[in-house]
Amino acid sequence: MIFDKKSICAALIAASVPLFSTGELSAQEPPPLAIKDFGSFHIGGRVVEIAGKPVKEVALTPHGAPAVIDPNGRYQVEQMYVQHFTPADERGRVPLLMWHGGGLTGVTWETTPDGRPGWLQDFLRRGWKVYNSDAVERGRSGWASPDIFKGDPVFLTVANPFERFRIGEGPGAWNDDPSKRRVHAGSLFPMKGYENFTRQVVPRWTTTDEAILNAYRELVDKVCPCVLVFHSQGGQFGFKVAQEKPDKIKALVAVEPASVGYLGQEAKLKNIPVLMVFGDYIEVDPRWKRMRETAGRFGDAISAAGGNVDIYDLPKRGISGNSHMMMMDSNSSQISGMVDAWLATKQLKR
Amino acid sequence: MIFDKKSICAALIAASVPLFSTGELSAQEPPPLAIKDFGSFHIGGRVVEIAGKPVKEVALTPHGAPAVIDPNGRYQVEQMYVQHFTPADERGRVPLLMWHGGGLTGVTWETTPDGRPGWLQDFLRRGWKVYNSDAVERGRSGWASPDIFKGDPVFLTVANPFERFRIGEGPGAWNDDPSKRRVHAGSLFPMKGYENFTRQVVPRWTTTDEAILNAYRELVDKVCPCVLVFHSQGGQFGFKVAQEKPDKIKALVAVEPASVGYLGQEAKLKNIPVLMVFGDYIEVDPRWKRMRETAGRFGDAISAAGGNVDIYDLPKRGISGNSHMMMMDSNSSQISGMVDAWLATKQLKR
Repeated sequence: MIFDKKSICAALIAASVPLFSTGELSAQEPPPLAIKDFGSFHIGGRVVEIAGKPVKEVALTPHGAPAVIDPNGRYQVEQMYVQHFTPADERGRVPLLMWHGGGLTGVTWETTPDGRPGWLQDFLRRGWKVYNSDAVERGRSGWASPDIFKGDPVFLTVANPFERFRIGEGPGAWNDDPSKRRVHAGSLFPMKGYENFTRQVVPRWTTTDEAILNAYRELVDKVCPCVLVFHSQGGQFGFKVAQEKPDKIKALVAVEPASVGYLGQEAKLKNIPVLMVFGDYIEVDPRWKRMRETAGRFGDAISAAGGNVDIYDLPKRGISGNSHMMMMDSNSSQISGMVDAWLATKQLKR
Repeated sequence: MIFDKKSICAALIAASVPLFSTGELSAQEPPPLAIKDFGSFHIGGRVVEIAGKPVKEVALTPHGAPAVIDPNGRYQVEQMYVQHFTPADERGRVPLLMWHGGGLTGVTWETTPDGRPGWLQDFLRRGWKVYNSDAVERGRSGWASPDIFKGDPVFLTVANPFERFRIGEGPGAWNDDPSKRRVHAGSLFPMKGYENFTRQVVPRWTTTDEAILNAYRELVDKVCPCVLVFHSQGGQFGFKVAQEKPDKIKALVAVEPASVGYLGQEAKLKNIPVLMVFGDYIEVDPRWKRMRETAGRFGDAISAAGGNVDIYDLPKRGISGNSHMMMMDSNSSQISGMVDAWLATKQLKR
């Protein structure tokens, strides 16, 4: 007998750790998490044909027999990887889909770069069934040859996210000598995990938005009604898919959206509660100030059409120090708790 | 209160499904899985400097403010993504590391392409703490620019794994018309999931073996002693790392290794129990016949040095129909059960 339910339960019940309340996770060692099911699938994409290229023979492993690689033929491209977790004690009325930002993967929502549980674990422990995907051409979704994807992918230096994600004070704030880096005063980004964070960065194209959208559309058709939680580059994807399929989306949580949905079609979101969350240092960063303004105008247009939009500018709520990567900052669980509490006010939790 | 331990436990205890026994998983809906902890990290890699390239301004999102992308600078490359799960009822004496094969990622071990639990779930439910990684340059490990990785990556057609992984009868067996595909008679590969399987395929380089090895070395240093379970291209990585760090490795499970370790250094494995598992149709596939022979010679050399090697040729044990992707075949849990039972005979389970 390898799964002894009684002894696990005795341990669970005997455990002296406090139980969670909504919006707040225990800082102590959490009790075991009962998972009903977890796994993964790929969705979407298309098959394309390539013709007229020479055949190659390639030794794929040392001492291995050579394999014939004929580049001509049909290729599966633009699919999307989705990993999902269902808690035994499911309390969200619908699942929660997590869509990461540019140059990153679903790892954004997992363990923080300094080793704490991420938003994926936070929401799962708060009773949400979670689908965490890697956008098309990122991570476990794979990517296609230059015959399919046009243009060059973008690779980020170790300095780039530091200067662009409001961890450092902006362009020029990075220095290869850690003691000379200009971190924003009061920053909550866990700098001891910064090197780990740069390991999470993956190449990205700037020509694949439509393919990314297509896969998200298929995912929503497959697993929703749902809540979308999306970050940064995910802004356009989350808002656009909700505008296209408003009946499938029960709430939108836009974490520092770097872009918005279809302009002029804001009324399509009037029946969907929207929460936008922005961190600190936005006023002193001209690029982020513009993106905050764009998001605000989009939110105002939804409200003007009769919608329901909340914008949490964290510093105005007494929470300072958050970078663009607030799901990794030292108060990450406080913020996921605020999101969870907001969702509860929308009658989305049992 | 969102994590009600008593009610979960009442449900667990009341559940009428049978408990598991070693080597056999229930075909019925399994009870919830109690997970002590799960998450992910990246490990290894190095920082490289690129210089002398022009600066670009790129609009990363529509309507978004343009971002300056300076390709010069320092890049984090060759890191490896690792996801880990710890069962509450841990019964493996050491963790189990799963290393996938070429052109694939850790998804190999997750849900099968036709939607059944994969070996990751099987071993976790059997009480093993599991670390499932994406090799360097695959999946969530990310990949580096042509300035770093030499040569072109290999992309696989939808036909290629069908013909090369002993699902179909070999070269020429694929046909775009499913009714004209020549599947091996008696094949256990779930053909209704074949299209999903092709979605799991990712590009791979043939010049990155040393970088892949380096990351595996670091992983073993971080989390072992352990058991290594590796597949196909993983053969050389699993055997070589074990030869380099024999004190860290308590058992090796080579699932159809396409390559072996350092020749002439087989004696370094004499204190590590080795299990190799091979499927069906090998005798009728010249390329696989050679790889089976290479693995057999390597195993004989370990035995001759005083080691302990078991080779399971499944057809000789009455199990026919297995492809190269036996962790996806319809009897996948039967085979993971045989591996689990073999590990138990090596005193690696509590």
